[in-house]
Amino acid sequence: MQKTTREQNLRLIPLGGLGEVGRNMTLLEWQEKILIIDMGFRFPEEDMPGIDFIIPNISYLKGKEKNVLGLIVTHGHYDHIGAIPYLINRINDSLPIFTSRLTRGIILKRQEDFSHQRRLNIEEVKDGSLINIGPFKIEFFHLNHNIPDNLGLFITTPVGNIVHTSDFKFDETPVYDVPTDFRRLRNLASRRVHLLMSDSTGAENEGHSFSEKTISENLNEIFKKSQGRIIAATFASLINRIQQLISLSEAYGRKVFIEGYSMKTNVEISRALGFIKAKKGTLVQSKEISRHPDSKITIICTGAQGEGQASLMRIINKEHPFIRFKKGDTVVFSSSVIPGNERTVQILKDEILRQKATVYHYKMMDIHAGGHAQSEELKEMIEIMKPDFFMPIHGQYSMLAAHAEIAKSAGLEEKNIVVVENGSIVNLGKKKIGIEEKPVPSYYVMVDGLGIGDVGEIVLRDRQTLAKDGMFVIIAVVDRQTGKIKGSPDIISRGFIYLRESQELLKQTRRKVIEIVSGAVGSGGIVNWAYIKDEIRNKVGQFLYAKTQRRPMILPVVIEV
Amino acid sequence: MQKTTREQNLRLIPLGGLGEVGRNMTLLEWQEKILIIDMGFRFPEEDMPGIDFIIPNISYLKGKEKNVLGLIVTHGHYDHIGAIPYLINRINDSLPIFTSRLTRGIILKRQEDFSHQRRLNIEEVKDGSLINIGPFKIEFFHLNHNIPDNLGLFITTPVGNIVHTSDFKFDETPVYDVPTDFRRLRNLASRRVHLLMSDSTGAENEGHSFSEKTISENLNEIFKKSQGRIIAATFASLINRIQQLISLSEAYGRKVFIEGYSMKTNVEISRALGFIKAKKGTLVQSKEISRHPDSKITIICTGAQGEGQASLMRIINKEHPFIRFKKGDTVVFSSSVIPGNERTVQILKDEILRQKATVYHYKMMDIHAGGHAQSEELKEMIEIMKPDFFMPIHGQYSMLAAHAEIAKSAGLEEKNIVVVENGSIVNLGKKKIGIEEKPVPSYYVMVDGLGIGDVGEIVLRDRQTLAKDGMFVIIAVVDRQTGKIKGSPDIISRGFIYLRESQELLKQTRRKVIEIVSGAVGSGGIVNWAYIKDEIRNKVGQFLYAKTQRRPMILPVVIEV
Repeated sequence: MQKTTREQNLRLIPLGGLGEVGRNMTLLEWQEKILIIDMGFRFPEEDMPGIDFIIPNISYLKGKEKNVLGLIVTHGHYDHIGAIPYLINRINDSLPIFTSRLTRGIILKRQEDFSHQRRLNIEEVKDGSLINIGPFKIEFFHLNHNIPDNLGLFITTPVGNIVHTSDFKFDETPVYDVPTDFRRLRNLASRRVHLLMSDSTGAENEGHSFSEKTISENLNEIFKKSQGRIIAATFASLINRIQQLISLSEAYGRKVFIEGYSMKTNVEISRALGFIKAKKGTLVQSKEISRHPDSKITIICTGAQGEGQASLMRIINKEHPFIRFKKGDTVVFSSSVIPGNERTVQILKDEILRQKATVYHYKMMDIHAGGHAQSEELKEMIEIMKPDFFMPIHGQYSMLAAHAEIAKSAGLEEKNIVVVENGSIVNLGKKKIGIEEKPVPSYYVMVDGLGIGDVGEIVLRDRQTLAKDGMFVIIAVVDRQTGKIKGSPDIISRGFIYLRESQELLKQTRRKVIEIVSGAVGSGGIVNWAYIKDEIRNKVGQFLYAKTQRRPMILPVVIEV
Repeated sequence: MQKTTREQNLRLIPLGGLGEVGRNMTLLEWQEKILIIDMGFRFPEEDMPGIDFIIPNISYLKGKEKNVLGLIVTHGHYDHIGAIPYLINRINDSLPIFTSRLTRGIILKRQEDFSHQRRLNIEEVKDGSLINIGPFKIEFFHLNHNIPDNLGLFITTPVGNIVHTSDFKFDETPVYDVPTDFRRLRNLASRRVHLLMSDSTGAENEGHSFSEKTISENLNEIFKKSQGRIIAATFASLINRIQQLISLSEAYGRKVFIEGYSMKTNVEISRALGFIKAKKGTLVQSKEISRHPDSKITIICTGAQGEGQASLMRIINKEHPFIRFKKGDTVVFSSSVIPGNERTVQILKDEILRQKATVYHYKMMDIHAGGHAQSEELKEMIEIMKPDFFMPIHGQYSMLAAHAEIAKSAGLEEKNIVVVENGSIVNLGKKKIGIEEKPVPSYYVMVDGLGIGDVGEIVLRDRQTLAKDGMFVIIAVVDRQTGKIKGSPDIISRGFIYLRESQELLKQTRRKVIEIVSGAVGSGGIVNWAYIKDEIRNKVGQFLYAKTQRRPMILPVVIEV
């Protein structure tokens, strides 16, 4: 691939956390004018204790705030909307935002938690809407995903047309959604696609994703068999799945209890906007549960990933005010397990079984479909769009690499495919595509409580060290006159060993500290406390390691009085 | 199930860590005489920072050490042998141990790291061996697993015969191992099986496990295609897989480089004992790698789980002395991903792809087979053995529950199946089986460095708290005469916020501490320092939470001078 510069090129910059290329945010820039696609966050890794989530690094926009013309949001999942309350006011809190009705509803609902912020300026668009933002003309088109009102983008730019697929899958028999309109996709394609940016999440999975219809049929089997209560755990964002469960419940004369704050909120918004339909009397308050026979009860709840505070966990831990598991209950996990949560979900499942309920999960039966196109669909998308250039987005590097292979198998030449990382600057010209040598800053920004970006590598490393072997504070009070330690050094330790059972070790450590101080001071002259602290840190560290093979963080404090 | 007592009953007690019932250890007790099956450990969960591994709780054996007659070890995996160096000398360091040749070799090799311990007393047994230990007569029989020399147990006891399957799968076309001998299994069964204890690991997986032959054929395809070096990462304990890779390398004229300490050790032992066969000149030292053309090189290494210090990671991080990835390399992940490691393995895979090698993993192609029987095989085992009673072992609760369902489908009555937890006492009589009301202690014992069991709930909880939001030590030096703080309180904080950028917060905190102390002391009378410390802890905690929404561990120190 050639090295390129910005003149006469459109710049494309994917941003976001942890290798999920462009999932959270993408910039399009033409002659200083910038358009943003999506503004999401992602959840932290295990080695980032205490971190709430990771938001895109927008250092590149510093000083360019005035050039940002607008934000397009493809759909209402948190990895595409979650960073809005953290980033929008750093750019321009009245920035025009364009998105679909449901996505708008979800974004505005979330803003209620950030009530000190200015009301967002969101314009509603839908399948077929056409808007102009500076040098860009954007036409929105419907694509299936596992949340309704998902929009792909057909962007006319000075260098050619770009198709951005959002997250998508092809579904000819979706449930409570419009089937994929292949004719419309071909129509768009007929206007010539210069660059296709397509969702890579499912690129490593062979074949075609399940249709939601299959899921509905399997869920129906479970409803048919179940005599007792049905407790269905899924993601609060799987609006279509929730609709399926509500409709099935209605078909079997069951009342529906929605449990969990985010589930309740999403159902509320989706109902208000017409994306969830329930007959009058179907949805019931959970305190009324005792009035209904078990065979007439469906509970839809959050917590399928084993989240500590979610309803499912509260039921299991017997902390839920109205609901306990019992024999006869059927628990349905209608969601996949997010990588990293496998162990927690296993423990959850074990505990439900111990409490005598029957469990169905997606490994036993197809009761969950992912929201992402798999290899066959991805190839079909490329074949429909016939782009000049191809850029896989939305996925870890291995998924992008697999998607690039699919593009090759669909006939694209390797030189016309760009596989990039977050922060890369892709230069798209009329005749060619290339990557600038120097990327923009893309080191992830961590949010912890009220702090945005203030937890950096040092704080994180300290947390990891503290987690591993705890800490050990040694406080020595030294007489300024004599240079001798007064009394016995204080020791505070947490997470290292159980101190009450380690008196001998503490005694030896204190003796060691006294030795170090008096040895260093005894030689006369000016006392170098920094040196003495280093000595304590090193020698006590070695001593404790020899005794325990652990390396607590050692913090010496010397107080002169 | 009925409540039972110990008279005239054989007691069976599964032990071990974290819900993997009986995987690590099982006790058999008849009239005070105790036989132990296996003595393994397991790796800790994510919420146990700093812990090396978890060993079985043997409190039940305290005071009964003299009654322990022997230890039987079924096979050489660490979850069955790993706790020996930690537990054997707490029971009896000359306890007779019975196991197969390869398992013995692996155990003895490991003991070299515990050279201060007395040499273990291990007697070698094999398929067909018959031994008497007190009231128990044990006949060993071969069963396939993914390590050679795995032995099932046919135990004659005063109440009837027990079959213990060890970990197993049926394989009629294994590679470098004997096929499953169904006639022998039927012969054993014909002597009447009172209780079957069978491996549940694969009970939730439908159908039949792959044969190692399939794996070999698929690996052969990769060898056929590859022009450059082949780098195969797998578990060091998968001796058969290593053999397959060596044999394929020989067939394609490739030299084999074994990388990684545990891999080297296992290959060495297995070769010495005849379980790995390699022609003279096949295995080569890694420093000789530059002397061979890429097409004639196979590297077999550890690190397929993304372990930080394993060879694969060192190659990726460019820390390996001789090996770097390059275009043309083929990397084969010939192992499954252990739950909890998915994210790390993803990062690993991404990085290898960035370094331009080609990657094959078990999701793309059947290049790994688990070592455990799946539902069809498990049903067949039950149908062959036709036991009076059935006890699923070796698995999380959900696997045991699934295995129990399989047993029912094989015709066993529910009342004859016992699904228990670690620490449960199962009483097996001539006519019935039951569980004692009171279990034995089974809370897991954590090993951290040299400490065995000294990290308990408190230390672990402190580590979790420290990991989440760090710590905050406040040191106030108080004048004994005036009760006033001398100078400004010292603050040491780690893992909370980056102090250099938080001077204002520290200043406010110091002021707060001075206020609290002078407020409490000013009222006259005896100064209650414990109360003042509590006040500092609470008020500073609230203050910091309000400012940051984080809750560091707050440790106040008051020094009177």
